[in-house]
Amino acid sequence: MTQPPPARIGDPLEAVDTPALLVDLEAFEANLERMAAAARGFGVRLRPHAKTHKSPAVALRQAALGAVGQCCQKVAEAEILAAGGIGDILVSNQVVGASKLERLGALARRVKLAVCADDVGNVADLSRVALSYDATLTVFVEIDAGMGRCGVAPGEPAAALAAAVAASPGLVFGGLQAYHGSAQHVRGHSQRGQAIAGAGERVRETLAALERRGLPCPLVTGAGTGTFGFEGASGLWGELQCGSYAFMDADYARNLDEAGKPISGFRHSLFLWATVMSRPAADRAVCDVGLKSTTTESGLPVVADLADVTYRGASDEHGALTVGPKSAPLPLGSKIRLIPGHCDPTINLHDWYVGVRRGRVEALWPIAARGAST
Amino acid sequence: MTQPPPARIGDPLEAVDTPALLVDLEAFEANLERMAAAARGFGVRLRPHAKTHKSPAVALRQAALGAVGQCCQKVAEAEILAAGGIGDILVSNQVVGASKLERLGALARRVKLAVCADDVGNVADLSRVALSYDATLTVFVEIDAGMGRCGVAPGEPAAALAAAVAASPGLVFGGLQAYHGSAQHVRGHSQRGQAIAGAGERVRETLAALERRGLPCPLVTGAGTGTFGFEGASGLWGELQCGSYAFMDADYARNLDEAGKPISGFRHSLFLWATVMSRPAADRAVCDVGLKSTTTESGLPVVADLADVTYRGASDEHGALTVGPKSAPLPLGSKIRLIPGHCDPTINLHDWYVGVRRGRVEALWPIAARGAST
Repeated sequence: MTQPPPARIGDPLEAVDTPALLVDLEAFEANLERMAAAARGFGVRLRPHAKTHKSPAVALRQAALGAVGQCCQKVAEAEILAAGGIGDILVSNQVVGASKLERLGALARRVKLAVCADDVGNVADLSRVALSYDATLTVFVEIDAGMGRCGVAPGEPAAALAAAVAASPGLVFGGLQAYHGSAQHVRGHSQRGQAIAGAGERVRETLAALERRGLPCPLVTGAGTGTFGFEGASGLWGELQCGSYAFMDADYARNLDEAGKPISGFRHSLFLWATVMSRPAADRAVCDVGLKSTTTESGLPVVADLADVTYRGASDEHGALTVGPKSAPLPLGSKIRLIPGHCDPTINLHDWYVGVRRGRVEALWPIAARGAST
Repeated sequence: MTQPPPARIGDPLEAVDTPALLVDLEAFEANLERMAAAARGFGVRLRPHAKTHKSPAVALRQAALGAVGQCCQKVAEAEILAAGGIGDILVSNQVVGASKLERLGALARRVKLAVCADDVGNVADLSRVALSYDATLTVFVEIDAGMGRCGVAPGEPAAALAAAVAASPGLVFGGLQAYHGSAQHVRGHSQRGQAIAGAGERVRETLAALERRGLPCPLVTGAGTGTFGFEGASGLWGELQCGSYAFMDADYARNLDEAGKPISGFRHSLFLWATVMSRPAADRAVCDVGLKSTTTESGLPVVADLADVTYRGASDEHGALTVGPKSAPLPLGSKIRLIPGHCDPTINLHDWYVGVRRGRVEALWPIAARGAST
């Protein structure tokens, strides 16, 4: 089900077939360096999230800038990262079900592997599988940091689960997973800060409960691109799990920093490359990027280089564009760049990153974990 | 980027890993037979749409029941259908751009190939490529059937384009493409009928303009699962392009027939198979089907077998469930079936259909054209 790459190394951008997922390599590299510097500045570890990029090619570039390893959400992603040369992986999610647990155990023999848990029965399963593979699994207790999704209640319930981990053969208590996903896309700077302050209270409450049990907490890990400045400066979190910063998207661009500017100066490096395939009227065009090339749950793609053209609606294989008078020629066959609404699930639709520098294709990176959902 | 199948032939359903895309083979087969019978009843051809299923395995089953060939939207899909044994393919879409045109020309040497056009410059390109490959391309003139997306205006503009096709070496005028996509999901039976009556007026206007030019129209092709009864009975359309009927989805299930029942008796045959991976509270659960396993632009997935459980929200890898008192146990590790909101883009996220009959895996069909978007 792998598709051939839509370009060849050395091609001019104009020759790249569409739809394609372009990476502006200068912006991408600047984003990677900026986040690495931010983590160093805070004195915390950076473990970027592979749920965004789905590609060992990206992970290795993050490692070269000091990332301690990678996060991922799925065992299948961890397997692909391991095969691609990443030796330290945190599955920042619950792993439930016999076949996934078996694969987790097998993988723990090959790489340094950690996983999250929010259930005492699941901890027992993790212990059994670690023992059966003669492996060690590091387990982070996930607390509900305020988003009301997975995670055990902070304080004593979390500390009790940590104690169960610590008492389980084959398992090592790694610390706390505290990620507030819904805070990432709160638009206002101070409102995001308040959400993370609330998450910090939950972390503190849990650290106190752990201390009462005499159980040291080696690490608190979490944070995303929208909020990492707060977690990084808190003195609580010791590891950041940001992923989207490498690429950004139209949704993150709506987040504002203290000065009302796009958060932290990260640049759009990810673009959808589209062809105008129908030109039914002067004020209407249709491009070939629809719902099978971009997702829309966080808003439609945004046209990148033409102020007068708007992506109005997506159907399965079509994007409807409104064309203003300034861009009116936009002839059939024109190629345009779109900024995806939401980077993670959009990347998961594509097989290849087409890395472009100064108008030429410099890199083709396989999105090896595309569709790796088990 | 191909993922291993989440099951083995013979596995009990319970052993299928998650997320997986299940096909209830009895419902699927009944749907295929029902549409084949409907087309026979109308005395029209059935050319099912591969944009839905993306799989030669499905296409061959439709062919066995009398389908004359397949539709698709992309050259890449046509290539995969051809490689999978389908010899008569209509790309029901515009093909624009040098590399796609070259591939179209090459493919036209191997299979009976047709394509749509709505632009006279594009017709010239199609003619050039057909000549350069010493191939024949059948071209359907796409009219705007009322949805305001692609397509030339009906009547004289469409007839003029048809005349350009007929006059172009290497091309054969195949007839009219008249598909009203937005009518498919209008809920009320009579409202859908009105939309297709409007499309029929546009077809008639174009047929009259063709007749004035002395240009015979061999075929009018179009229609989808939501409206085919109207096109089929109209006496205008000679070929139906339905795709979703094989599977159905939660969105189509909201369409009503004359009696206020789900349209035409098609059954849900497509399900997402999900594991309950976190159980943070008695009234809340989290499953492992999120935005990378299901799209949500036509609504969230619907829980299939538990009246008291609701899929409340999707994040990238998680589905948040509300659990009512009747289903309250729903322990960690439970597996549940979800009806996708929108079949086409959801199928495009998966590599395998897991065909299930009476609780056992009977078939694994590769979704070979998943991601085939060029």
